[in-house]
Amino acid sequence: MTAPRLSHLDAAGHAVMVDVSAKPDTRREAVAHGHIKMRAETLGLILAAAMPKGDVLATARIAGIMAAKKTAELIPLCHPLAISSVKVELAPDRAGEGIDITARVRTTGPTGVEMEALTAASVAALTLYDMCKAVERDMEIGQIHVIHKSGGASGTYDRASGS
Amino acid sequence: MTAPRLSHLDAAGHAVMVDVSAKPDTRREAVAHGHIKMRAETLGLILAAAMPKGDVLATARIAGIMAAKKTAELIPLCHPLAISSVKVELAPDRAGEGIDITARVRTTGPTGVEMEALTAASVAALTLYDMCKAVERDMEIGQIHVIHKSGGASGTYDRASGS
Amino acid sequence: MTAPRLSHLDAAGHAVMVDVSAKPDTRREAVAHGHIKMRAETLGLILAAAMPKGDVLATARIAGIMAAKKTAELIPLCHPLAISSVKVELAPDRAGEGIDITARVRTTGPTGVEMEALTAASVAALTLYDMCKAVERDMEIGQIHVIHKSGGASGTYDRASGS
Amino acid sequence: MTAPRLSHLDAAGHAVMVDVSAKPDTRREAVAHGHIKMRAETLGLILAAAMPKGDVLATARIAGIMAAKKTAELIPLCHPLAISSVKVELAPDRAGEGIDITARVRTTGPTGVEMEALTAASVAALTLYDMCKAVERDMEIGQIHVIHKSGGASGTYDRASGS
Amino acid sequence: MTAPRLSHLDAAGHAVMVDVSAKPDTRREAVAHGHIKMRAETLGLILAAAMPKGDVLATARIAGIMAAKKTAELIPLCHPLAISSVKVELAPDRAGEGIDITARVRTTGPTGVEMEALTAASVAALTLYDMCKAVERDMEIGQIHVIHKSGGASGTYDRASGS
Amino acid sequence: MTAPRLSHLDAAGHAVMVDVSAKPDTRREAVAHGHIKMRAETLGLILAAAMPKGDVLATARIAGIMAAKKTAELIPLCHPLAISSVKVELAPDRAGEGIDITARVRTTGPTGVEMEALTAASVAALTLYDMCKAVERDMEIGQIHVIHKSGGASGTYDRASGS
Repeated sequence: MTAPRLSHLDAAGHAVMVDVSAKPDTRREAVAHGHIKMRAETLGLILAAAMPKGDVLATARIAGIMAAKKTAELIPLCHPLAISSVKVELAPDRAGEGIDITARVRTTGPTGVEMEALTAASVAALTLYDMCKAVERDMEIGQIHVIHKSGGASGTYDRASGS
Repeated sequence: MTAPRLSHLDAAGHAVMVDVSAKPDTRREAVAHGHIKMRAETLGLILAAAMPKGDVLATARIAGIMAAKKTAELIPLCHPLAISSVKVELAPDRAGEGIDITARVRTTGPTGVEMEALTAASVAALTLYDMCKAVERDMEIGQIHVIHKSGGASGTYDRASGS
Repeated sequence: MTAPRLSHLDAAGHAVMVDVSAKPDTRREAVAHGHIKMRAETLGLILAAAMPKGDVLATARIAGIMAAKKTAELIPLCHPLAISSVKVELAPDRAGEGIDITARVRTTGPTGVEMEALTAASVAALTLYDMCKAVERDMEIGQIHVIHKSGGASGTYDRASGS
Repeated sequence: MTAPRLSHLDAAGHAVMVDVSAKPDTRREAVAHGHIKMRAETLGLILAAAMPKGDVLATARIAGIMAAKKTAELIPLCHPLAISSVKVELAPDRAGEGIDITARVRTTGPTGVEMEALTAASVAALTLYDMCKAVERDMEIGQIHVIHKSGGASGTYDRASGS
Repeated sequence: MTAPRLSHLDAAGHAVMVDVSAKPDTRREAVAHGHIKMRAETLGLILAAAMPKGDVLATARIAGIMAAKKTAELIPLCHPLAISSVKVELAPDRAGEGIDITARVRTTGPTGVEMEALTAASVAALTLYDMCKAVERDMEIGQIHVIHKSGGASGTYDRASGS
Repeated sequence: MTAPRLSHLDAAGHAVMVDVSAKPDTRREAVAHGHIKMRAETLGLILAAAMPKGDVLATARIAGIMAAKKTAELIPLCHPLAISSVKVELAPDRAGEGIDITARVRTTGPTGVEMEALTAASVAALTLYDMCKAVERDMEIGQIHVIHKSGGASGTYDRASGS
């Protein structure tokens, strides 16, 4: 049995974009979560600004969608992918302490789209930070993880709840 | 006294890139923190791969530096900035549960560089996720916040320790 | 019968990149038209500059071709596409009042290339504006529309002549 | 007296990015207009979709703002500029036949921002086209011109009304 | 028999992105070589800096990989391609006068990847230049050529050795 | 006396974007040279294609100019710069064995523009390769070096002739 090793390094430890030319195209999906924590007053301002015609949540959704398309430009060893769909959802968390972000990405291709979903969630969170930073500097972005992944040889992954 | 409001929305609630044309150029710095949590075995692989000539940490550092330069492309209402320097540092955290990321950005200009520092930290974390995802899917990126900011009219900010 | 609705908004009115993962790859083509109106003297300068070795029309053609490849970066909800060919043609209009622009784009994929053709025509026109603006400020870009589209489930479209 | 010539071509007719290194930084502004024409029913759908929380106009505004920042990437001979502000406004036209677009851009620098304003207006129009194309294919983008420009050696320009 | 002509120009001599929509997807590979010449002392500094944990070669490798993904943005008439893998190798040359660069790129698609391999080699060389320019200004980049190409209708090409 | 070291690595050997925030803005210029070698017949085709209205040399010039603006995106540790001018000149070499490329870039800023000039020359050469590769595969890009640099604390550099 061989030990696990980092797939993005060759035998000499050098970074490589791993070869996916022998992998078939399959339909794939990944869903990532993220969160931005803020004071109740800051959250109140966002929700008020999201009232009729306010652009604050729309701006973050669009930034997340556009970032998903830029993933291979940002992450050095990611493969460029023809993304089939992206959806970014934002909602206040249950505790009233911030915004939950869910990014869902689909493709038909030889590699998965976890990185695209994680990038969309991260950039949506950064965009919320940017729009609220004049009001609060203590916000914190966190809980960025994959919650679901399907398609491809490695099968379906669902993050254990509570983890 | 006026209520605080989101500076990136105009009176109608529409997204705008706020006007900084009347603000003088000053020297500014921002430092952001980020973290990626992983199993001890995954962390061990990274640290082993970072051994002589291994590219894993270098790849994340460079991805963070290059992402800082892309901030205004990613965050819709960010101003383009002539960045003077970027440094991204990675180190195992004290608990042995992941990697701490520190991104320091400087500029001379009319706006601050928090978003550049936060973006560098986020993309460095995403790059580590990408390189380790074949080994562990449960990693989580978090603790992304500003720890220091100086320069400009709003003065120096240092995040309260422990927050 | 359901009312028509905007396909790029979900039921809540939120922007989404629509899911094309179930659509088959087919060969597709779109042709867009654009126009830039200018004074006869400005047009004369362009045509003189386009004389042997002058780069003015070549610059606009190349800008249009390169912009077609950037469409998914510019238009938030556009899908990235593997473009098979782009051709941008420029010719003085019949009235001698400007330049007619025709952009033809082909792909084999799950979505059409109207946006790529329209973007190529628009950026070719903007490039002509840029190169002539020191001579005339009153130029106007217009008549940007799709004149032909084929491939895909929605069939062939040809714009009614005279419209 | 010398004849006017195209400033972006050298004496041999070759494209060059003109030298602005001797020009001082001044505060500059440009405002551009654009228009997209559509059927009354399509316009009705947009306005309905822009109702509380609908993202359609927000998406076009943000696309226009982000495109302003990409101008020097799109227009081959444009200088990169540190944009100070961008605002994109969208409103139904008086005749009820489409949407009027106004893009206002400011900078402090050695060259003007007409191209940034025109690019913002064009890409906002293209984004509206993209979001409505499933409903109407006959839309036409037009009336893209500069309506105001100030700052720099060439003085203030205001487009003659009615032109 | 027709004379050879440049495939990227149409009959009028105008630049076009040639139509590949009728070409089938096949697995393709290209390998390019490049070289940067420098003084023995500069080479010594690089090799010392590449010692345990030094990022100098890693930075050039990653820059080359990321540049391969940007080829269609840089080369006006190149087709966008879904790259399957990229590997950039750097080694001191036999004469001790510089660094040899080898870039290997694979795809499954309708066109070859020579330009991607050549771009990766060129940008890796430019990155080495950048990192060493404070020490030596006389470095020279050269020997950039294709050494192997396979896949597609035109068959396998191997550069004659010694050429 | 300290030994020379690579300025883009910190004391630990990690890549950093060096801090230029204390350096004043000065007017700077750099000129780079490049060359592409080809068979006489290929050169003849280019020169014929460059005849009245042929776009081949214009495409390479424009690609070089646009690449200069992308330098900080391509070279990981390069600072973003407000380029004041770019000029790319192409001419058959004296021996009739290829094309000589000269790229001249100017800025007013805290760092030099050698990398911008070298990048412009490299991408112009790659673009010529792309347009001629269907005719000749054995072309070789070389002789990429800085021939002149002025401005900034390090003073004027002129490459020794014949080197």
